[in-house]
Amino acid sequence: MKLSKRITHLTPGGSDGWDVFYRARAMKSAGQPVIELTIGEHDIPTHPSILDAMHASATGGHTGYAAVPGTQALRQAVANRIQSRTGVPTTPANILITPGGQAALFAAHTAVCDEGDVALYIDPFYATYPGTIRGIGATPQAIPAYPDHGFQPRAVDIAKHAKGAKSLLINTPNNPTGAVYSRATLQEIADTCVEHDLWLISDEVYDTQLWEGDHISPRALPDMAERTLVVGSMSKSHAMTGSRIGWICAPSDIIEHLINLATHTTYGVAGYIQDGAEFALGEGVALEDEVSAPFARRRLITESLLAKQNIVKGSPIQGAMYAMLDIRATGLTGEGFANDLLNTHSIATMPGESFGIAAAGHIRVAMTIDDDTYTSALKTLLDFAALKAA
Amino acid sequence: MKLSKRITHLTPGGSDGWDVFYRARAMKSAGQPVIELTIGEHDIPTHPSILDAMHASATGGHTGYAAVPGTQALRQAVANRIQSRTGVPTTPANILITPGGQAALFAAHTAVCDEGDVALYIDPFYATYPGTIRGIGATPQAIPAYPDHGFQPRAVDIAKHAKGAKSLLINTPNNPTGAVYSRATLQEIADTCVEHDLWLISDEVYDTQLWEGDHISPRALPDMAERTLVVGSMSKSHAMTGSRIGWICAPSDIIEHLINLATHTTYGVAGYIQDGAEFALGEGVALEDEVSAPFARRRLITESLLAKQNIVKGSPIQGAMYAMLDIRATGLTGEGFANDLLNTHSIATMPGESFGIAAAGHIRVAMTIDDDTYTSALKTLLDFAALKAA
Repeated sequence: MKLSKRITHLTPGGSDGWDVFYRARAMKSAGQPVIELTIGEHDIPTHPSILDAMHASATGGHTGYAAVPGTQALRQAVANRIQSRTGVPTTPANILITPGGQAALFAAHTAVCDEGDVALYIDPFYATYPGTIRGIGATPQAIPAYPDHGFQPRAVDIAKHAKGAKSLLINTPNNPTGAVYSRATLQEIADTCVEHDLWLISDEVYDTQLWEGDHISPRALPDMAERTLVVGSMSKSHAMTGSRIGWICAPSDIIEHLINLATHTTYGVAGYIQDGAEFALGEGVALEDEVSAPFARRRLITESLLAKQNIVKGSPIQGAMYAMLDIRATGLTGEGFANDLLNTHSIATMPGESFGIAAAGHIRVAMTIDDDTYTSALKTLLDFAALKAA
Repeated sequence: MKLSKRITHLTPGGSDGWDVFYRARAMKSAGQPVIELTIGEHDIPTHPSILDAMHASATGGHTGYAAVPGTQALRQAVANRIQSRTGVPTTPANILITPGGQAALFAAHTAVCDEGDVALYIDPFYATYPGTIRGIGATPQAIPAYPDHGFQPRAVDIAKHAKGAKSLLINTPNNPTGAVYSRATLQEIADTCVEHDLWLISDEVYDTQLWEGDHISPRALPDMAERTLVVGSMSKSHAMTGSRIGWICAPSDIIEHLINLATHTTYGVAGYIQDGAEFALGEGVALEDEVSAPFARRRLITESLLAKQNIVKGSPIQGAMYAMLDIRATGLTGEGFANDLLNTHSIATMPGESFGIAAAGHIRVAMTIDDDTYTSALKTLLDFAALKAA
């Protein structure tokens, strides 16, 4: 019995830099004290007030099928939020509620790519990007964004692969690099999309975790609203990772097709979770700031510790919950460094190689543990690097 | 800008019998009192004890990413349930938790079909079946199951299209017909699958709503476990439609691939919903019986009222929450009957034509409103039919 090529080719074989992650998890399961700086997840749970809002909705009777596109109230709340943050006129007809950002990424690519189409994405990349593209039967093509350019992609590199491609996936603020794309970068991207008639899929799930500059949604650039599908989520902004709730914002005719797709892929999202999300959005920036504050603090800790040495170089930590550290001065690869650090100090980080080719010689540190432990672990890491470089 | 063929071809154009449904909804929105016998959804909410279990899990901290395959405890609970009901050895490695049965149908077809492959399904069919197949880029092919055979599919009809096809999707107890496939039917199906090397996708979401005979899972037939993907859900059995939680049960190597797919399509299911589902399954058949009891009562009401006249013929209502009524003696089509009945008596039913060609001249009545209103509406419907036939 043969399975589909689509599912059997989802992930390529061989080591992909995630060995250190799985090894750390195994050590931890075996009872060893491992400090994990690996995971993009808050060290706080979802705020109790959101959970209470969900429960009130559920016990109030919202336990039957919710409308597949999302509740009108949540679609309106998301549209309002996007319009107020970007200035682009946005209505509920521009919004599909999805069971999480990943489902939105999958749906967005399904909407614009057919079997065999080429879909571009930026390297370094979030782990699921190429598999998402392969999962719909399209062909992923990486576009490197180099550390020398602060991990900002350049039009010249996109243009090399843009001819005949269908879409470009970007992510700002960026996981794994912590870069926030500048207006100049985004305008280059927009121009390239227009020139080569590419759809732009813009993953903006970290839009509340911004430490420098402004978050610019490329949908707000001239002529871009018609060709941009924005992916959003409550996961990072409201510490609701487990609740699996997100959205796509796109032109209304595309949303109509995406609703049709959702009828066949998920049949909607739990109504009481949507009501919880609506409540959370209603709390405004105060709650978003509360959720992002720990990362803002740890980013300052990181910059302060980095400034005290000159072996490990930090890329600008402009947004998101990660620091991408250049450890090339140690002479080690990212994988080598991460494995050594795990073996000798039980500190787990992600090798840059886990995220593609462009972040080789780097490690990604997730700032997702309490301040004291984080400070201590980062100090250990920097001392370790100094020793290796000596 | 062109969208993908896959998404734009999801639903064929033209009337598909659902006009009466949308018209009834519009009338209701406009304030008219419409009795809806259209929707496959309980008239009770999810049991409060399940909602409390969810809330306890969430406030207890289970709000971060759950494991993508599902929690080990829920996978074990589902495996236990399936093994105890079917006798087939089943472990957590055979189970993927999905955000609902629809997501499971989509994933199962993705696992076995590539672009352009032919995927078979039985007509009359649940509304999303052909679109689900088109949604993954495969080609749906209907196999009629005729009213003269109690809507049981026959090997001879499947064989006509089996050559070169990749999969067959069946549903027992059946929506929309209320048929429960007999052991003989399922053995014919199994033999045909083996002969033509078809994957069998078995949608068993109504397995607790059984009014006659036994529910037989085809996975339990000889040589079928290796080629069967069972789709299950908490929606119908536990009145948890809105919670979007279901599963696929399949050979463990297929589940491994499906976990990989889930990483890229949904990234798992809310942990607290899984904990609620685990609690619900722990309540055993007592809770399942409580949830199915109203339909058992209304099925008796239906049979009793049908026995008092001879215009409308009922197909055997063996399972699920529907009665498929043969109204051909009125000289009307299903669509004509349903539209007339809505216009004259504000009672909404689904034309058999909504579900394909094999149920033409029928209407589907969902037994999903309170007993008294149901009784009164069905009486009106039968009187209406008698008048038309006169």
